[in-house]
Amino acid sequence: MENRKENFSEWYNEIIVSSELSDKRYPVKGMNVWLPYGWKIMQLIDGIIRREVDKNNFQEVSFPVLITRDQLNVEFEHIRGFENEIYWVTKGGKEKLDVDLALRPTSESAMYPMFSLWIRSHADLPLKAYQIVSVYRYETKHTRSFIRIREIHFFEAHTAHASYEDAEAQMEEYRRIWKNISEALGLAYMQDIRPEWDKFPGAVYTLAFDTVMPSNRSLQIGTIHEYGTNFAKSYGIKYLKDDGTYEYVNQTTFGMSERLLAAVIGIHGDDTGLILPPAIAPYQVVIVPIPGDGVDAYSRKIGDILKNSGIRVKIDDRENYTPGYKFNDWEMRGVPVRIETGVKEVSGNTATIAMRNIRGKKTVPLDRIVESVNDAMEKVMEKITENARKDFEKRVFMANSENDLSAPEGLAMAYWCGSRECSDLIEKKYERSALGFRNDRNDSGKCIICGKDGKIAVFGRSY
Amino acid sequence: MENRKENFSEWYNEIIVSSELSDKRYPVKGMNVWLPYGWKIMQLIDGIIRREVDKNNFQEVSFPVLITRDQLNVEFEHIRGFENEIYWVTKGGKEKLDVDLALRPTSESAMYPMFSLWIRSHADLPLKAYQIVSVYRYETKHTRSFIRIREIHFFEAHTAHASYEDAEAQMEEYRRIWKNISEALGLAYMQDIRPEWDKFPGAVYTLAFDTVMPSNRSLQIGTIHEYGTNFAKSYGIKYLKDDGTYEYVNQTTFGMSERLLAAVIGIHGDDTGLILPPAIAPYQVVIVPIPGDGVDAYSRKIGDILKNSGIRVKIDDRENYTPGYKFNDWEMRGVPVRIETGVKEVSGNTATIAMRNIRGKKTVPLDRIVESVNDAMEKVMEKITENARKDFEKRVFMANSENDLSAPEGLAMAYWCGSRECSDLIEKKYERSALGFRNDRNDSGKCIICGKDGKIAVFGRSY
Repeated sequence: MENRKENFSEWYNEIIVSSELSDKRYPVKGMNVWLPYGWKIMQLIDGIIRREVDKNNFQEVSFPVLITRDQLNVEFEHIRGFENEIYWVTKGGKEKLDVDLALRPTSESAMYPMFSLWIRSHADLPLKAYQIVSVYRYETKHTRSFIRIREIHFFEAHTAHASYEDAEAQMEEYRRIWKNISEALGLAYMQDIRPEWDKFPGAVYTLAFDTVMPSNRSLQIGTIHEYGTNFAKSYGIKYLKDDGTYEYVNQTTFGMSERLLAAVIGIHGDDTGLILPPAIAPYQVVIVPIPGDGVDAYSRKIGDILKNSGIRVKIDDRENYTPGYKFNDWEMRGVPVRIETGVKEVSGNTATIAMRNIRGKKTVPLDRIVESVNDAMEKVMEKITENARKDFEKRVFMANSENDLSAPEGLAMAYWCGSRECSDLIEKKYERSALGFRNDRNDSGKCIICGKDGKIAVFGRSY
Repeated sequence: MENRKENFSEWYNEIIVSSELSDKRYPVKGMNVWLPYGWKIMQLIDGIIRREVDKNNFQEVSFPVLITRDQLNVEFEHIRGFENEIYWVTKGGKEKLDVDLALRPTSESAMYPMFSLWIRSHADLPLKAYQIVSVYRYETKHTRSFIRIREIHFFEAHTAHASYEDAEAQMEEYRRIWKNISEALGLAYMQDIRPEWDKFPGAVYTLAFDTVMPSNRSLQIGTIHEYGTNFAKSYGIKYLKDDGTYEYVNQTTFGMSERLLAAVIGIHGDDTGLILPPAIAPYQVVIVPIPGDGVDAYSRKIGDILKNSGIRVKIDDRENYTPGYKFNDWEMRGVPVRIETGVKEVSGNTATIAMRNIRGKKTVPLDRIVESVNDAMEKVMEKITENARKDFEKRVFMANSENDLSAPEGLAMAYWCGSRECSDLIEKKYERSALGFRNDRNDSGKCIICGKDGKIAVFGRSY
């Protein structure tokens, strides 16, 4: 296995292959096959997302993948932002289609013609819908598993509200939802208001949740967008007010993808392999029997006890593999807790527990096995979260003078006036582009370039 | 609401609109929007399918939607069977693609090039994978919600085995899995071996699970296919045997779609609307408060008790709607059990229970509410199953002479020699096509047309 810190890119590609998350050998470049272990982790991540949005009264829908060219053309900024990345269906069977159909790059243009039919009055608002689907981008840049690909596993929430204030309250709700999701995954992040030239095409503003990978490049792992009435005006989404007049709705969206998995792999992993937060581990516990009298039956007994408590457990009873091989194999795959069962455990009515990211083993009595495993999972998660926070803090530093921007590593925070000129200069001279103003900080100071009044912003290389 | 028996097609379209399952007004013809209620039912159906195949050690994967023309061309019969129905992506952004890419019509040609990389030795077999994805068919026939559409919600299992016998054992396992799924949905069915000219393109044989709708037309709601080594030879899927030689694998598949939902709607529904099996009802119980002192708190209390027992429950506390309106509304949406709570129930510490498909109400004590609701759901399900079975038996009749084939209604069973000539004659003269020999019957007799030796088969109009 490659050293994670030194050769992050190689390590990242290698761990995806060896832990069997996805397979890049599919004949269409940039489109990978989700293997069972990777897909299961992604489904568990989706489950966390569903739970959080369902709690906030979102409703899941599923829209068609194909969008007519006419639908897409309705919002000018929007289509301009995506037109170079769209896959076009032009033929059905042997016939040329009357109208070209796009594979959705995102679903505004699929959903909003329907929103204009569904929304009639105040009683239809707020409308809060989401879907978890594939979206498609004809990427011309270098592709990378789970980070930049051509078929993206995508969560997209879309809302419509009676007023801009209600839409802004929705943006607040998104931030609370995001906080819960990032905590469940143990991910540290910052909130960045993207510069005007980098916001979502058609949005009033874009707020991104950015984290930082061991390569010191930032990774956007979630975005929320305030659309105001921009799309509503293009798609004619109006509601009847009490006074008998019509008003355009205000809209927002929230997007996430398998980049959440990329962040989990890259940030939590170590030289040995994956380290999975228990909430998204396909197996939270693996039981490795050390061959001996009564060990198999005893292992199954422990397995049943844990299963009945709702813990996802795997008994590794493969023949022809040594316990040592199995230890390494499951460590590489990131299983949070390992239980070893041998004759000593059988005779003593105990189990020996090891944690993926904390050294040492502990022998616990069988009648406390569920509490002990839950406790171990909690400790694993605490350590994951703590390490991720420390790593994030180490990689995001404050640049107090222009000279600090030339530091080779990490993301640089600096006061910035917000002008394109100063940002372009930083990009040209220091190869750091503006991720935007920090929305979660309110320090102000003089722009690091021009000296005018500024606020704190972040500059760095991003994926 | 239309009369279900008399005007089935109108009734079917109307109930889909009024119970808000899907919306046909999407700008691409034949591609519909799944609305929250319909999507939730479909997800619950998917959950049943996942549970059944997971129990049998299938692993879920997710393959790309795009397939190169080369991949598709590998198996001649297969591509010939689908070429008129394929949507082709020919452009990315403004560029013409080097190679045309198909939206998967089914995933043999996506998966099998990878199977040939994954399968090396006996240890890799059996390989049992499945996915739940959209597949695409450029249908030129009349489209119909959930029955014949252009974006199909699809379950597909794919297996590879060391021998034909192992593949045949897999076909047996599929039948057991199917039996459990059909029972959970309360659907009656027959097993029909499709005629040679109607089997899956590339298969050795196709076994279909057919049911019959109130329109007296058959609906194929599941198919399993024996591929033998047909695809393995085309895609080079081989394994190393103990004797050092290579052997082609034998393969099978199992396919289902949202036609399962179509069958549930059509077969279980009545003139009032949907009747949902409790296992797939988004709300298994709706509580309708009859306004009065203490009723709201009491309703919430009952709701909490049921929720804590894992029952999906909705309290309909909408203002501006009468209890009577709510009763009708939820009956139309097929909720299995209704609970009414008024001042009488509050003071007596009781609840009044009504079942969707059994007349009468019953008042039960609060401390037995969970058992009472579970019992009511069981009764609803028994009635659903019994009615479906009776309906099926009524609509599938035995034709003892050619004259019986001219009966206007239902599906006709008859002895058949298996020849295309006799089948074509029946189709021409009686507008009944051959669904195939009944695999679940072994009666034999003289062909109803030519008088040669035959076995029992089914003839009818199908969707």
